Amino acid sequence: MPHQVLIFSRFPKAQMVRIGERYELLDGKGRPPIETFSAEQLKPIRAMITAGGQAIPPVVLDMLPSLGAIICYGTGYDGIDFAETARRKIAVGNSPAANAASVADLAMTLMLATTRRLVAADDYVRSGGWSGAKPSPSMRPPLGMTGRKIGIYGMGEIGRKIAARCAVFETEVAYHSRSKHDVPYAYHASLAALAEWADILMVAVRAGADTQHAVDAGILKKLGPQGTIVNISRGSVIDQAALVAALESNVIAGAGLDVYAKEPHAPDTLTTLPNVVLTPHIGGHTVEAHIAMQDCVMANLDAFFSGKPLRYPVT
Amino acid sequence: MPHQVLIFSRFPKAQMVRIGERYELLDGKGRPPIETFSAEQLKPIRAMITAGGQAIPPVVLDMLPSLGAIICYGTGYDGIDFAETARRKIAVGNSPAANAASVADLAMTLMLATTRRLVAADDYVRSGGWSGAKPSPSMRPPLGMTGRKIGIYGMGEIGRKIAARCAVFETEVAYHSRSKHDVPYAYHASLAALAEWADILMVAVRAGADTQHAVDAGILKKLGPQGTIVNISRGSVIDQAALVAALESNVIAGAGLDVYAKEPHAPDTLTTLPNVVLTPHIGGHTVEAHIAMQDCVMANLDAFFSGKPLRYPVT
Repeated sequence: MPHQVLIFSRFPKAQMVRIGERYELLDGKGRPPIETFSAEQLKPIRAMITAGGQAIPPVVLDMLPSLGAIICYGTGYDGIDFAETARRKIAVGNSPAANAASVADLAMTLMLATTRRLVAADDYVRSGGWSGAKPSPSMRPPLGMTGRKIGIYGMGEIGRKIAARCAVFETEVAYHSRSKHDVPYAYHASLAALAEWADILMVAVRAGADTQHAVDAGILKKLGPQGTIVNISRGSVIDQAALVAALESNVIAGAGLDVYAKEPHAPDTLTTLPNVVLTPHIGGHTVEAHIAMQDCVMANLDAFFSGKPLRYPVT
Repeated sequence: MPHQVLIFSRFPKAQMVRIGERYELLDGKGRPPIETFSAEQLKPIRAMITAGGQAIPPVVLDMLPSLGAIICYGTGYDGIDFAETARRKIAVGNSPAANAASVADLAMTLMLATTRRLVAADDYVRSGGWSGAKPSPSMRPPLGMTGRKIGIYGMGEIGRKIAARCAVFETEVAYHSRSKHDVPYAYHASLAALAEWADILMVAVRAGADTQHAVDAGILKKLGPQGTIVNISRGSVIDQAALVAALESNVIAGAGLDVYAKEPHAPDTLTTLPNVVLTPHIGGHTVEAHIAMQDCVMANLDAFFSGKPLRYPVT
């Protein structure tokens, strides 16, 4: 008989098909598990799959006394309270780097689309502005990539891939992260120094208490009126209210955002701005990234149920 | 006294400011010069600036008996009738490679935006589809870049820059052009073979009689139902009616287009499609590309008026 696994977050069905071929899945569909399953059903559950960004209230863990493993679908694990999991002796696993290329590619898509004003350009063609020679300030030539200074905040798997991609666009690349890495890019000792130097700031840092609102009004001001910011990390890294204010008053030029303070929600103050490109947290959302993340989830579950350490533990 | 230069095509004023500081410009604003200037004014004109894609009717050349140089603003010169210019002993110059990085960057923007369905994603966020968890077929995970086969048609300056950019996205890159080049990508002896192999076809070939409708219904069929095509060259290289038909009936998956059969015009059959990203011929339209193109135009004019061969002749 297959082992039972609780699905805590709301995942599209298609993402669980392969995992469901190997395990018996109890799908909570994002609601508190006790609303969908009885205490008796939950009691023997030993493993669960969750979206790493979603907080798991202790009351949920209380209903799962046998829980030994929380497996995050994806790279992030900012929703995990590690004091709580340690106290309860619950192992935590994730899918490291499985979606790194996919996320880095979306970061590039957002950077290019924002600087070249792609959404406005597509609308200009579709709405007949072009054929009618209608003057449009958004169609004035923008600064392109050549020679631009791109600052990468965070030099993990995703940051490295973004840096490599940016470099081939004939730009200057530098970075800031907690520590210096063995990479061929200039290191800035603070995010403030990086923002002061950069034309474009790519946020690729891991989210957590130490990076909460790391990008605030002061950092945006340093980025400057020609500056562009791209965030494919987590909404929590940027002070979203400060970002909206900066975009509204041209403290910076534009933003490409895949993540937001409160998902799935982008506030009207953002969605009505012309100088932003907005995507619905689809960084890791490609066929190949999902397959790789599912592979990691299954490798973690297989190890756990064989009594071995997780294949991809969060340490 | 500065030399006089006729501006034949319609250029935004801003693009001629620097050139106007050195030459006396007679701006035809895209209308037949004789509508704006007298035959007497046109008679002594020795040089003119044109957009390379625009045809110059022989009757215009007849009004310019002193013309010795046609300087194309940009890389293209497909509007030039070289038999006619040779017969009249008119030198033709262009701005080789001046906008290559800018055009290659837009090719990448279109490729990424089309495969990641960026315009639909931005609309999904802005229209509230995301926050309302509204099901959307365009938000299903697409194939990303990793491992994808990208075929480059044309291996000039722009094709090379596109190839270098694509390679860093962890793809396979191959190409077809009239002859083999010393580049680290596999060569396909025909466009048909390249299309058969490729998932994504990047059109970067120089436009001309030999490439007119090179991408036809047969080539699109070979590209296949997961295939994407990007064109930043000229509209004439693709049979546009065949492309629309292929997009409508899912013979291919999507297209990113900066150029069209009849500019400035994208037909309604294109502008109503969801699986395309459309830009209004802005490939070379960045601040730095314009500066580089203006530098080339002025270097050509300076050489010509000094009695020297053009600095950047089309040979």
